[in-house]
Amino acid sequence: MTLSINGYAAQSATTPLAPHRFERRDPRPNDVVIDIAYCGVCHSDIHQARNEWKNSIYPMVPGHEIVGRVSAVGKDVTKFKVGDTVGVGCMVDSCLDCASCNAGLEQYCEKGAVWTYNGVDRRDNMPTFGGYSERIVVSDKFVVSISDKLDLKAAAPLLCAGITTYSPLRHWKIGKGSKVAVIGLGGLGHMGLKFAKAMGADVTLFTRTPDKEAEARRLGADHVVLSTDKDQMKAVSRQFDFILDTVPSPHDLNPYLATLAVNGMLCLVGLLEPIEPAVQAGMVVSGRRSISGSAIGGIAETQEMLDFCAEHNIVSDIEMLDIQNINEAYTRMLKSDVRYRFVIDLASLKKAG
Amino acid sequence: MTLSINGYAAQSATTPLAPHRFERRDPRPNDVVIDIAYCGVCHSDIHQARNEWKNSIYPMVPGHEIVGRVSAVGKDVTKFKVGDTVGVGCMVDSCLDCASCNAGLEQYCEKGAVWTYNGVDRRDNMPTFGGYSERIVVSDKFVVSISDKLDLKAAAPLLCAGITTYSPLRHWKIGKGSKVAVIGLGGLGHMGLKFAKAMGADVTLFTRTPDKEAEARRLGADHVVLSTDKDQMKAVSRQFDFILDTVPSPHDLNPYLATLAVNGMLCLVGLLEPIEPAVQAGMVVSGRRSISGSAIGGIAETQEMLDFCAEHNIVSDIEMLDIQNINEAYTRMLKSDVRYRFVIDLASLKKAG
Repeated sequence: MTLSINGYAAQSATTPLAPHRFERRDPRPNDVVIDIAYCGVCHSDIHQARNEWKNSIYPMVPGHEIVGRVSAVGKDVTKFKVGDTVGVGCMVDSCLDCASCNAGLEQYCEKGAVWTYNGVDRRDNMPTFGGYSERIVVSDKFVVSISDKLDLKAAAPLLCAGITTYSPLRHWKIGKGSKVAVIGLGGLGHMGLKFAKAMGADVTLFTRTPDKEAEARRLGADHVVLSTDKDQMKAVSRQFDFILDTVPSPHDLNPYLATLAVNGMLCLVGLLEPIEPAVQAGMVVSGRRSISGSAIGGIAETQEMLDFCAEHNIVSDIEMLDIQNINEAYTRMLKSDVRYRFVIDLASLKKAG
Repeated sequence: MTLSINGYAAQSATTPLAPHRFERRDPRPNDVVIDIAYCGVCHSDIHQARNEWKNSIYPMVPGHEIVGRVSAVGKDVTKFKVGDTVGVGCMVDSCLDCASCNAGLEQYCEKGAVWTYNGVDRRDNMPTFGGYSERIVVSDKFVVSISDKLDLKAAAPLLCAGITTYSPLRHWKIGKGSKVAVIGLGGLGHMGLKFAKAMGADVTLFTRTPDKEAEARRLGADHVVLSTDKDQMKAVSRQFDFILDTVPSPHDLNPYLATLAVNGMLCLVGLLEPIEPAVQAGMVVSGRRSISGSAIGGIAETQEMLDFCAEHNIVSDIEMLDIQNINEAYTRMLKSDVRYRFVIDLASLKKAG
């Protein structure tokens, strides 16, 4: 027995998303059934809907910034009850038994985490389907609680854009006295500014767009540096302890590395492609600088991030969307025409008939 | 008044090294005069003698792995006395007043360290001349003590090859329980094996040459992986906490990054050129891996390294050289035909007459 679900799916790499009816598994004893209220739209939804990472499974129901309310729980679930406000991010399972999982880093599971969509369930080998849908069934270990203090719509992007930026700032111990720069002001970048500021850092935004200054300051930046201006770049050479690089396409890291202090770290959270043009090894050797990367965060850390958001009243800046307009939203996202995250109101699904 | 010194110099990028008489400054109150006994031959001597870094000053007297005995001290010197066994590495001065210098990281001095040769003195603006010579005059802050327990000839390379490999292993807290790999078995690599082993790590050598296994084990490797063998590389995927990459020319980092554990670090100590082919950002994002670099070490850490060597009876494996054969030695070094460091016996200078 399965649950029949309404959602939106891509049927191939070249077809627009459209209404799609599909099955989810009957809840297992440790499963939580969530009525999805809102789902954020992440750039990786586009990459995968269009098979740009060459691993897409169709039909595909994207969406991994999911918030909603518990509508049923399996018999072994004690952490959640019907009516709770909860979220699901990029993962719905992992082996829970390797060194990474034991360290709370399920995203780096040695056997591979099971992604919320375009993944394959470890037990029934069925494809996973994401949050562009009315309801989802998820193991309780991969469900997080969301405080009712937060605006639920605007909390949805915390499940991916939020944890992706929060986790590296925490891992590299950003706090009072840290000098942090964020490269890029989009879905990830605007969260990076908010978190770095809330953690007490002195925060700089690197941008190529002069008109973003006021926005950046509103979001938490103490300083804005126009990265296309050589004098401005030179003025911040050897300044930063940590650079959060949210740019999703290849770009030259060398000018940014020059702005790192001794022992400084540049962390990639937007890029998965080759690092081109080439990094000059001398840029890291001189000053013991580092280049790293980080992928989302573990489940316990995702809960910690959500609690931090409730304490500091942090959510995303969003634009609401009816699901019927998802293809238009993708087009606008590719032009960076959103401040700063689209969130689908799943109530609109009912209009889809 | 100056000191007249015999040495060997390159007169241009294209002339072989040949006997050369030059002047050193009259000792200042805090200077130490050192009669040079031995000087190691570093690959960067060749780069600079041949102007491969495009910043060479001629005539150039190379050499920055200098050991000898104190023959005179300025009136303010209290740390050293005539007859002491001492060493000088890659630096002879720095500003001593910036954040890096105050942190004991003179090699990353914000105003630029003064290199032992091919540098310019901060006070008299005269070029600096290195250890392919009978005597050197150095500020006491940049002189280190060498235990008489160590074979002095074989201690010379510790001043560059030694500290270059010791410093990153210490900085990244290598010790018992660490899984360390060293890429490349040359002047740097053979010291990396010795230090990593002495620090208690489980040590692997990556090499492209199958016949190096016995040598590698003698020098401290617990395991040897042939990096050209895909199966051997696959067998060590996600294994290492730290990789010390001593390769001095561009090479593909991606296969090595795949062998780093979650949170693993690959540290470049041999490369200054562009990192090509391009690193896949996904290789660092997945597993929060890092690429860093490190340059020699500060003066206090150099002393710590020499004391560690005395305690653990660590020196370099060397081949002795009369200075008249320096050009032939360069030719052999370019073919990696030395196990593992040439050291010049400066007594041979007297033969140069």
